[in-house]
Amino acid sequence: MKTLSIAIAGLGTVGADVVRLLAGQRDLLRMRTGCDIVIKAVSVRDKSRQRNLELVDTEWVEDARVLATRDDIDMVVELIGGADGIAYDLVTSSLDAGKAVVTANKAMLAKHAGALFTKAEKSNAPLRFEAAVAAGIPVIKHLREGFAANRVDAVYGILNGTCNYILTEMDEKGLSFDAALKEAQALGYAETDPTFDVDGFDTAHKISILAALAFGALPAPDAIRVRGIRDVSALDIAYANELGYKVKLLGIARKTKAGILQSVEPVLIDDDAPIAAVDGVLNAVYLNSDFAGESLSVGRGAGGRPTASAVVADIVDIARGAALPPLGIPLSAAQGRADKTRPVDANDRKGHYYMRMSVNDRPGVIADVSAILRDLSISIETVLQRARAENGKPVPVVITTHETTEGAMTEAVKRIEALEAIQEPPHWMRIETSFNEH
Amino acid sequence: MKTLSIAIAGLGTVGADVVRLLAGQRDLLRMRTGCDIVIKAVSVRDKSRQRNLELVDTEWVEDARVLATRDDIDMVVELIGGADGIAYDLVTSSLDAGKAVVTANKAMLAKHAGALFTKAEKSNAPLRFEAAVAAGIPVIKHLREGFAANRVDAVYGILNGTCNYILTEMDEKGLSFDAALKEAQALGYAETDPTFDVDGFDTAHKISILAALAFGALPAPDAIRVRGIRDVSALDIAYANELGYKVKLLGIARKTKAGILQSVEPVLIDDDAPIAAVDGVLNAVYLNSDFAGESLSVGRGAGGRPTASAVVADIVDIARGAALPPLGIPLSAAQGRADKTRPVDANDRKGHYYMRMSVNDRPGVIADVSAILRDLSISIETVLQRARAENGKPVPVVITTHETTEGAMTEAVKRIEALEAIQEPPHWMRIETSFNEH
Repeated sequence: MKTLSIAIAGLGTVGADVVRLLAGQRDLLRMRTGCDIVIKAVSVRDKSRQRNLELVDTEWVEDARVLATRDDIDMVVELIGGADGIAYDLVTSSLDAGKAVVTANKAMLAKHAGALFTKAEKSNAPLRFEAAVAAGIPVIKHLREGFAANRVDAVYGILNGTCNYILTEMDEKGLSFDAALKEAQALGYAETDPTFDVDGFDTAHKISILAALAFGALPAPDAIRVRGIRDVSALDIAYANELGYKVKLLGIARKTKAGILQSVEPVLIDDDAPIAAVDGVLNAVYLNSDFAGESLSVGRGAGGRPTASAVVADIVDIARGAALPPLGIPLSAAQGRADKTRPVDANDRKGHYYMRMSVNDRPGVIADVSAILRDLSISIETVLQRARAENGKPVPVVITTHETTEGAMTEAVKRIEALEAIQEPPHWMRIETSFNEH
Repeated sequence: MKTLSIAIAGLGTVGADVVRLLAGQRDLLRMRTGCDIVIKAVSVRDKSRQRNLELVDTEWVEDARVLATRDDIDMVVELIGGADGIAYDLVTSSLDAGKAVVTANKAMLAKHAGALFTKAEKSNAPLRFEAAVAAGIPVIKHLREGFAANRVDAVYGILNGTCNYILTEMDEKGLSFDAALKEAQALGYAETDPTFDVDGFDTAHKISILAALAFGALPAPDAIRVRGIRDVSALDIAYANELGYKVKLLGIARKTKAGILQSVEPVLIDDDAPIAAVDGVLNAVYLNSDFAGESLSVGRGAGGRPTASAVVADIVDIARGAALPPLGIPLSAAQGRADKTRPVDANDRKGHYYMRMSVNDRPGVIADVSAILRDLSISIETVLQRARAENGKPVPVVITTHETTEGAMTEAVKRIEALEAIQEPPHWMRIETSFNEH
């Protein structure tokens, strides 16, 4: 039986589960690949850490970068993380040396895809990254192969399990954002510094990678307007429920005539749509394409075992001889389409919107707000004002709109905020109706 | 640019949309495959039928079987249908001749997989069938590649759009089965003779193919216990809703210690589970595997365009050089595992059950039923008896059980049916709790 010699750089949660998977499913993987996958070397920052791994005949190296040029290694599995530094050095020099690379590093891909894909193509080395987005859902393969015959119109995703867990807890238990975040931290679903997750940056990296595959372009994470979930309140979620919606943080990428619109933002979704039922740490990816139509995939987005499953699926593919370019099309083709895939401003899109204001309850406020909306040609669909003021306290007023442009909505929010009777900046979110099409 | 010469046998709805897709996405497909996919020949039963297809430079042949041996054809796309006859002759002789074959023919695969896979392996000819199951969901690729690193524990599917449409209409509008079927027929979602769909045979073919890929075995459709949806009444659906469930027709394949359990049956599913929200003609496939965990994919299961998308994805894969065996593992490996994958009896499984009886409302009936259940160690979870008898008419009584075996439940139904006060055979369904795990 042939041998495929791999090196694993980084033995954190994911790396350790990759080692366990390769050992535990050895017979299965032999059957699937016709070869023996041997872990020739591993590299870790701290070798003394207790990992409970059986790694016989595996060499431990200190500097991961040496793996790139070793003749006895066919494939490098990069699980160090970080957009730059050792991970970047290792992956680029491995590709230069013609080695196959499997990585879970979304930050590096989002930032350096151009350089990495160029190197991979130049040396004809497979570069795979299924684990970088929604680990337990083979969505990269979906886009590159399963939907290869389609032009994709839109790809939307619940791509961050931490945010989805927090929003679910707020929805089900009426918790505040802070309380739900604390709970997520206690359970290990959120980091001590949760910025990267809750402010939407992780989702932005991931949707930029999905958009690249969907539309045949390089990732453009800097072109994404990113709003996280810190400003979503339990009150907004309660109103959303009353109006028949769930609140979800989505990565959104949509083809328009002018180019590709990308955003990360909390939105209201019709609570009958299957994606609205995706709760807790689960991830989901929704695609709309011209022949296959709508599709939705749900699964675990993170965690050692699902991520290891994605990493090893890539290893298996390469062992089986798969040799597609990273985007599924030649980089030159992607670059030739750059005029069709340039970023467009989210302000130009149309849609329905939700807005919650904190209002001093006195005659004329609703009239003032209505006048602002009328001046911007925004038509009101519903107004909810449940409570009456007590002792002069402000009361919440919720408005949903008929279809308007996001630019008009942004301007309306600015003008309403300037009204004397408005107590804090209005909270507003898009009502995403794309899931109601079927 | 290289040329891939294909022949298409059968130009019904799917075949016509394959032709349209290949023409409409020509640039996209060139970019993805690096070759020109040329339709060298087509074969149809009735050439005179109006199809609105532009087929310049394409030869029309009468007998599809001649396509198998023509040297100027690299790949045969079989869209004729039927388990035997011309389709079978064409596919077997094409594989014998070493030609790549793409087919959407689930009946043929379910019945003849052993012979077909043997021929494909012998002549090293790719044989692909993504379109055979849940066309708009790349579930074959999922199982063969995306989840290649996993041992699958269970695969469940809503695999027949006709049945799901009928059940959805019954649920939403309170229609009877007959009324919903008529509506589906009027809309073209159901055939004039609906047996193949509503009695579960189509679902059985499909789940047998998914089980084969999930568990590394040949399809065993004859081992599947098949119950369709004819006996599901609007009353059952209303009671299910009241109890917090939806009714769905599922294809079920589950690994047990003794072997593989397969069934097709209407079941009650917790209405919070994402799969419960899969309505209308949509299909869904749920997987549970050891590393990736739970996943659910939803999409269009049938129709010309989604099926064409799956057919052309296979063509693209083959054009890109993909050359895996049909099951993703060698046939010898599947045969070597036959003792682990032998069919097991559905009567041995455990679960919760729903039963609706039509009862003459007089003292002692519930006591008799309870005694039968007690004697079989079946413990009651809820009893619903909403109506009182009018003029001696029978009233419905609904029982749900705690966990028991299906064998005990079957015996209980038999004994209850024999009670004098019971007016018709009890209606019973499994309550499928697998989707509540997360």
